[in-house]
Amino acid sequence: MQLVQKEKTILIVGLGLIGGSYAKGLKKLGFRVIAIDIRKEAIDYALQNGIIDDGYTENSPEAIGKADIAVFALYPKVFVKWVEENQQHFRPGTLLTDVTGVKSCLVYEIQEKLRKDLEFIAAHPMAGKEVYGVENSDDAIFRGANYIVVPTEHNTKEAVETCKDIGKLLGFQRVSELSPEAHDEMIGFVSQLTHAIAVSLMTSCDNEELVNYTGDSFRDLTRIARINDAMWSELFLLNKDALLAKMDIFMKEFLDLREALNQEDSEKIREKMRLSTARRALFDKK
Amino acid sequence: MQLVQKEKTILIVGLGLIGGSYAKGLKKLGFRVIAIDIRKEAIDYALQNGIIDDGYTENSPEAIGKADIAVFALYPKVFVKWVEENQQHFRPGTLLTDVTGVKSCLVYEIQEKLRKDLEFIAAHPMAGKEVYGVENSDDAIFRGANYIVVPTEHNTKEAVETCKDIGKLLGFQRVSELSPEAHDEMIGFVSQLTHAIAVSLMTSCDNEELVNYTGDSFRDLTRIARINDAMWSELFLLNKDALLAKMDIFMKEFLDLREALNQEDSEKIREKMRLSTARRALFDKK
Repeated sequence: MQLVQKEKTILIVGLGLIGGSYAKGLKKLGFRVIAIDIRKEAIDYALQNGIIDDGYTENSPEAIGKADIAVFALYPKVFVKWVEENQQHFRPGTLLTDVTGVKSCLVYEIQEKLRKDLEFIAAHPMAGKEVYGVENSDDAIFRGANYIVVPTEHNTKEAVETCKDIGKLLGFQRVSELSPEAHDEMIGFVSQLTHAIAVSLMTSCDNEELVNYTGDSFRDLTRIARINDAMWSELFLLNKDALLAKMDIFMKEFLDLREALNQEDSEKIREKMRLSTARRALFDKK
Repeated sequence: MQLVQKEKTILIVGLGLIGGSYAKGLKKLGFRVIAIDIRKEAIDYALQNGIIDDGYTENSPEAIGKADIAVFALYPKVFVKWVEENQQHFRPGTLLTDVTGVKSCLVYEIQEKLRKDLEFIAAHPMAGKEVYGVENSDDAIFRGANYIVVPTEHNTKEAVETCKDIGKLLGFQRVSELSPEAHDEMIGFVSQLTHAIAVSLMTSCDNEELVNYTGDSFRDLTRIARINDAMWSELFLLNKDALLAKMDIFMKEFLDLREALNQEDSEKIREKMRLSTARRALFDKK
């Protein structure tokens, strides 16, 4: 953990919920944290609450030039465009990382377009909330959560280690590595498919009295149905093939269970329930 | 709330998680609580821990004859059979209620078979845990939860009110009334469909490394995939038609979202996400 010992400046680009939570955590650790966000309220709030040391509402060459490490917490397409338009302001040797929820569609593109004296190492902190903005940020969401570093053959060992260190310093419980393709397949299943299910469950019923009768099961399955439609539609579309494949696998299982019920095949229903119970139990053990 | 003032004896038939949680809550309220369970360990545990005043491992005529109110926390089919075989031991005027998760298939049958000097008023406490047995019982699970009373035209106003009082006394936040048919349709959606989804999601992927990469979304959507297969397969089959209908509605929505993704119809995806967000927001307001 060399990072904290040095007086490094970390630039957060995009000071929303996750960018703000990074800022809070990193500042507590002793880093100098500066941020760029087009929303003046976000910068003002962060300055007033001691979440950042300096803030900018424009892509200030001065701010960009100060960064030892830059963390991008932007929508995927905005992120790619930002790098194209502003990378000339970084000092040589600056390390870029991110928090984006999809990888294949942007990691290779950014690494190819990036100046050769800069390095981009992708990361995905698997944490979030159903509310937005730096005003709701909280670095406690990282504790106990998973953090995935997503290197390619263009990354140096040092960058991968530094990126892992950031995750460990922020308090993530498990820090692991996946290729961009493996990441997107995984995320298509554990994150995007679950959001697709939650949204579909919520749009399946227009009974507003539901809240008077529901138990925890329905609440749990629909918590993530409160969703940022601009961001999540972009994430879905950028991972379309992987997500479609996962949706099809789920649907096959669901139809299989439906058919067992229709046939009143009690043993087959129980077999599936026993399998799901055994698999889910692994999550509570670790 | 006349109930607590009287020194009533409540008989719990089936001292599992819910029966045990009722026993704990009712005993704290000052009722005399006795229980019948075929599992000797359950009765011993409950006696040793002051959860019940008296316990029986057989359908003791003496115990049954003591009850002012009997609460049935059994599997549906066992419940019906129990009433057929043991109702002769109740004193005239005893009120029977239950906690069963399905209603149409048993409420009418029990009311028809029941002695005319007894009354059965159905109820469904919408609370639970992913663990079983009186050893895991906890009356705190009722606080903030929903409680549904399910009367038919054969029920007296007094029984309906007494049944509601039990829910209120146990700490349920919302106590409401539904017909057996409306209950089963509702439960097919909020409870059984969600369990069918969670099970299908869990059986969709055999990657044991999943736990290292997953976020809260996947955890939340699969919590209820740890499921008592004997009980839930029975509940599914006893509510087959309603559940099949709900599964089909969900599947239609899910396929609709899949098609929008396949067509890269961003606006349609966002529209669904906005609808789900607005509907889910109602749950957090109340």
